[in-house]
Amino acid sequence: MTTLKDRRRFLKTSAGVSLLAGATSAVKAHDTTNPLARSGYGARSQYDTAVRISDGGSNCSFASDCNTLTPLQDLVGIITPPPLHFNSAHGAFPPDINPDEFTLYIHGLVERPLKFSLAELKRLPFISRIAHIECEANYPAESDITVQHTHGKVSCSEWTGVPVSVIMEECGVKPEGTWIVCEGMDRDLHSKSIPLASAMDGILAYGQNGAPLMPHQGFPLRIMIPGAGGFSNVKWLHRIKVTDEPYLTPSERFSKPFSVKSVITYPSGGQQLDGRGYYTISGMAWSGRGAIKTVDVSTDGGNTWQPARLEEPVLDKAITRFSLPWVWDGSETVLKSRALDDAGNIQPTPEEVSEKLGASIDDVKRNRVRSQDTQWNMIFPWRVKTDGSVHVDLWT
Amino acid sequence: MTTLKDRRRFLKTSAGVSLLAGATSAVKAHDTTNPLARSGYGARSQYDTAVRISDGGSNCSFASDCNTLTPLQDLVGIITPPPLHFNSAHGAFPPDINPDEFTLYIHGLVERPLKFSLAELKRLPFISRIAHIECEANYPAESDITVQHTHGKVSCSEWTGVPVSVIMEECGVKPEGTWIVCEGMDRDLHSKSIPLASAMDGILAYGQNGAPLMPHQGFPLRIMIPGAGGFSNVKWLHRIKVTDEPYLTPSERFSKPFSVKSVITYPSGGQQLDGRGYYTISGMAWSGRGAIKTVDVSTDGGNTWQPARLEEPVLDKAITRFSLPWVWDGSETVLKSRALDDAGNIQPTPEEVSEKLGASIDDVKRNRVRSQDTQWNMIFPWRVKTDGSVHVDLWT
Repeated sequence: MTTLKDRRRFLKTSAGVSLLAGATSAVKAHDTTNPLARSGYGARSQYDTAVRISDGGSNCSFASDCNTLTPLQDLVGIITPPPLHFNSAHGAFPPDINPDEFTLYIHGLVERPLKFSLAELKRLPFISRIAHIECEANYPAESDITVQHTHGKVSCSEWTGVPVSVIMEECGVKPEGTWIVCEGMDRDLHSKSIPLASAMDGILAYGQNGAPLMPHQGFPLRIMIPGAGGFSNVKWLHRIKVTDEPYLTPSERFSKPFSVKSVITYPSGGQQLDGRGYYTISGMAWSGRGAIKTVDVSTDGGNTWQPARLEEPVLDKAITRFSLPWVWDGSETVLKSRALDDAGNIQPTPEEVSEKLGASIDDVKRNRVRSQDTQWNMIFPWRVKTDGSVHVDLWT
Repeated sequence: MTTLKDRRRFLKTSAGVSLLAGATSAVKAHDTTNPLARSGYGARSQYDTAVRISDGGSNCSFASDCNTLTPLQDLVGIITPPPLHFNSAHGAFPPDINPDEFTLYIHGLVERPLKFSLAELKRLPFISRIAHIECEANYPAESDITVQHTHGKVSCSEWTGVPVSVIMEECGVKPEGTWIVCEGMDRDLHSKSIPLASAMDGILAYGQNGAPLMPHQGFPLRIMIPGAGGFSNVKWLHRIKVTDEPYLTPSERFSKPFSVKSVITYPSGGQQLDGRGYYTISGMAWSGRGAIKTVDVSTDGGNTWQPARLEEPVLDKAITRFSLPWVWDGSETVLKSRALDDAGNIQPTPEEVSEKLGASIDDVKRNRVRSQDTQWNMIFPWRVKTDGSVHVDLWT
């Protein structure tokens, strides 16, 4: 247990007499202004430089086939700022669609084929829900350094839009209608097949964190199915066809909802601790199958575990922020987190996955064993070296 | 009660045969790209033009004494995008402070005066909380047209930072310490006195919606006390002095937490309904004294009321989104909302406030009767005219 006394060890007592003078000179030195701060649409500080990076490496020029990763190491709380929301590209730059000319078509195995303008969609009943999206390919590679590389294909937003169930009720799905094919308005008309039963929990989302979607998130409309793999959440959605079987597109597989996962974001790979003393370990946990129930954290490589504090709100199929006070004694150690969801799923070790799948530990770490039941959600270790540097510790 | 049949009246059935051709040509026409969508820090659509406006009128050039209002009519859900968060200026443009040179000083009636770098603050225990901030001056004027004018001085974010209670525990408040004076790092060293007991529920916030604060929200640090008036939440916070009495600054008054309030944002002033038929009324409710318990909506000027649906999560001292299906028959009418919080507070009518305070109805509408117990939180009416136009209906 850490105590108040532990915290005090790193705190520096001020000399009271010098406070006023010091404070005032600091103001003079820093009173620059940010012109955009007073515009109608405010901007971030010039000192806030967090960016999405490509999963192709830091030299990526954001070409059309680039996927971008959220800088989890720079974020706090559970909400992802939309400019930093990860995205997966499909061979085309995000289109910027004129919402006044936008139409959503619903057809196929329905009693009444329908079309909706965006204004018409906004007249229908809506739902708002804070939920995460995670890409299927959210697993680490040996070259990865930071948590942005290893886990940056997950983000969490408040999504607002029309429940899929409302639209399906409007159209009257025929008894043989069991799948929907969602088509995006990007250059290649990217489409995905989704079991109707899974989609009924989804949202035809036009809002993200209060505002319209950003173009890289599907402006003006996307489908968002909490817990489903990111690839099902078709962006720039303009057509839904109700069918009795999936279309045979290359990535046709509709996976089971993703299981429980967590990662420590502070301290994490590439960060540097400022000497021994008191720290607050911070991280994110999420599950595609329910709400987070508990997160345990180990500061000794998994020998002992302590329950982390969970920040409210703890929501179904959304990121939950956890924390644990920690006094680092300056010796080399390994930090890990292990989440449990309210459906009873718990993060496994690589050894447990290896045994379950009958594959080598190296193969499961590298996600070489793919099955409908598998998702890369193993307990993830960070090594803290005596110089305070932090490193991925998965491959040793 | 509205029904599925009501909804269908406004929906247009598509001619199935033309679907594919129509959809494809729409893509060709709209496949422009937004260059910023693929940058490391994504941008909104060129078609998303919502902006904060000044409370000095739409011609304001965002001079240093301008306050800015959130475009509530353009927002959905409960989260306010930080670029659109309202702010109150105090005679100076927002500074853009170098966080590496930032220091927070705590002194006055404490056992141990302390100073913290931002990095040191981030090592301490943190809390994340979704909560709203409302300005004391969030009341309408007769010239107001939209809900941005009438209610735009309220916004809601996920705030992350160090609990004030943790900092006070570190410093060891002396028995006679009952107030804190918070000083900002803006040009005029804007400061506010806050009763320590109220401040102990507050956060020294460095994070807003996952990211660092924006400069107009106090980057790199502000105090945020859920439920307290906006003016207490000092931005660019660099100094806290513990005292035994409030400092005599011009706006010294520390008001009681604000009471319950709500407003319909769709349809709202300046908007235009597209003929009779099915609509989903949408609005926001909040209370500085608790969580929203119920919101009732009237579509006949207050003669009858129906319970609105509340979106999850419903949080203490945060905005709650509500909605109600409504079939407009095309006749002139007045829409109103009335919120109740879990502390038992309910929005009053102007007549009830007039009677309680012994003042004229005109004076209470214009907020000419100020007292520690009063906040402008009356039931707010929008008039829908037969042409579908929507107008403020308070002054008639």
